Amino acid sequence: MTYCVGLKLNHGLVFMSDTRTNAGVDNFSTTKKMFTWEVPGDRVITVMTAGNLATTQALISLLEERSKRPSERSPTILEQPTMFQVARLVGSTLKEVIADSAGEGQAASAGFKASVIVGGQIKGGLPTLFLIYPEGNFIEVTDDAPFFQIGEAKYGKPILVRGYEPDLSFADTIKLLMVSFDSTIKANLSVGLPLDLQVYENDSFTVAEQARIEADNEYFQTISQGWGEALRTALMHLPSYQRS
Amino acid sequence: MTYCVGLKLNHGLVFMSDTRTNAGVDNFSTTKKMFTWEVPGDRVITVMTAGNLATTQALISLLEERSKRPSERSPTILEQPTMFQVARLVGSTLKEVIADSAGEGQAASAGFKASVIVGGQIKGGLPTLFLIYPEGNFIEVTDDAPFFQIGEAKYGKPILVRGYEPDLSFADTIKLLMVSFDSTIKANLSVGLPLDLQVYENDSFTVAEQARIEADNEYFQTISQGWGEALRTALMHLPSYQRS
Repeated sequence: MTYCVGLKLNHGLVFMSDTRTNAGVDNFSTTKKMFTWEVPGDRVITVMTAGNLATTQALISLLEERSKRPSERSPTILEQPTMFQVARLVGSTLKEVIADSAGEGQAASAGFKASVIVGGQIKGGLPTLFLIYPEGNFIEVTDDAPFFQIGEAKYGKPILVRGYEPDLSFADTIKLLMVSFDSTIKANLSVGLPLDLQVYENDSFTVAEQARIEADNEYFQTISQGWGEALRTALMHLPSYQRS
Repeated sequence: MTYCVGLKLNHGLVFMSDTRTNAGVDNFSTTKKMFTWEVPGDRVITVMTAGNLATTQALISLLEERSKRPSERSPTILEQPTMFQVARLVGSTLKEVIADSAGEGQAASAGFKASVIVGGQIKGGLPTLFLIYPEGNFIEVTDDAPFFQIGEAKYGKPILVRGYEPDLSFADTIKLLMVSFDSTIKANLSVGLPLDLQVYENDSFTVAEQARIEADNEYFQTISQGWGEALRTALMHLPSYQRS
């Protein structure tokens, strides 16, 4: 399992992903699920992946043109004119990888599936996010649905629904995401620290912040411990149930 | 889908279940999922069910001995000497119903499955809770795992993990459960109001409180609206993220 969130604010985009990958509880390790293509002044494109690790690694390798010699590579993701075209490229590549794994004439089995969040901005266009399905089609973020989650989305969703505001600061958004990830990590062994974090500020065409939050990160510990206390206080302040 | 929680406190048991049943989003209705057998002074047994509605209704009908004429019924659930025996009876009946539906020589398909929470107290024994699997086996509540959830458990789990204390009052436990149910209802259309609520106080051998929380219930509305506000306040009071 995996947990990734991509979130659109009025002034930018924030991405967070965990790094745990596992095949059963007795076989887990750490792997990056967040990948960035940056051409300062022209574009920043961030991709986060969930699902079959062979599928997602193949997807990223193909996007990076690792099938070509290093000297001949010119990743097409860097040549797309719009984020919509980037989403189409990622979607069709993903579909192709899954179809390859599933074998000829055979619909993709659940086992090879993967989902992807793609976000960023290309000069001349607006910053945006896409959620790409294993079938290769995709949806775009809207004001009504301003964030996407992939992987183990349920535990961490209620706090996002309640806490998200389009005008949150980056610092507060990171706090909100840490609470959402902490709730998920506490409930599902297959989601784990460290976390990867990335912040993009509208029209900057460069990554504003990139960080790896390790298990011993002091701020994460503060949030994790403080949140339990804060929740209990919040509960305490709601009126008590009275028998009717 | 369904959402039911059974929770053990130092001084009693609290049960809550939703009432939505559906076969696709275009076909839903209200059905009771909480059933109680009470012999004042001797025992109170509460059963909550999640899963295939035909399976769970057949289970309850068999436990009530509806296969016999009304005059000849003497439900064996009322004759078990201990809660452990009650759990075994419910488990074996559940297994039998699923095996019947799945047909001869055929393992039960997921489609007929159901899970059950059984709780209560029988004179001479302690109050307790069991979680019964479709296979008929079961686990008992412990101090380390003091509550059981069945159905759509994920959205509402983080707040239970954070808010539960064994010495919570009944009123505060009901508040906590309402927050957990509200988070779930907000996220999953297949869980819906009204809610059924039941409270059992240790060694009382009678139901302390039984209520149906309708959609227009004033207290539920207060909690649902207040909780969003309380969460945002709680978030606000946690320290802000500082770039390291």
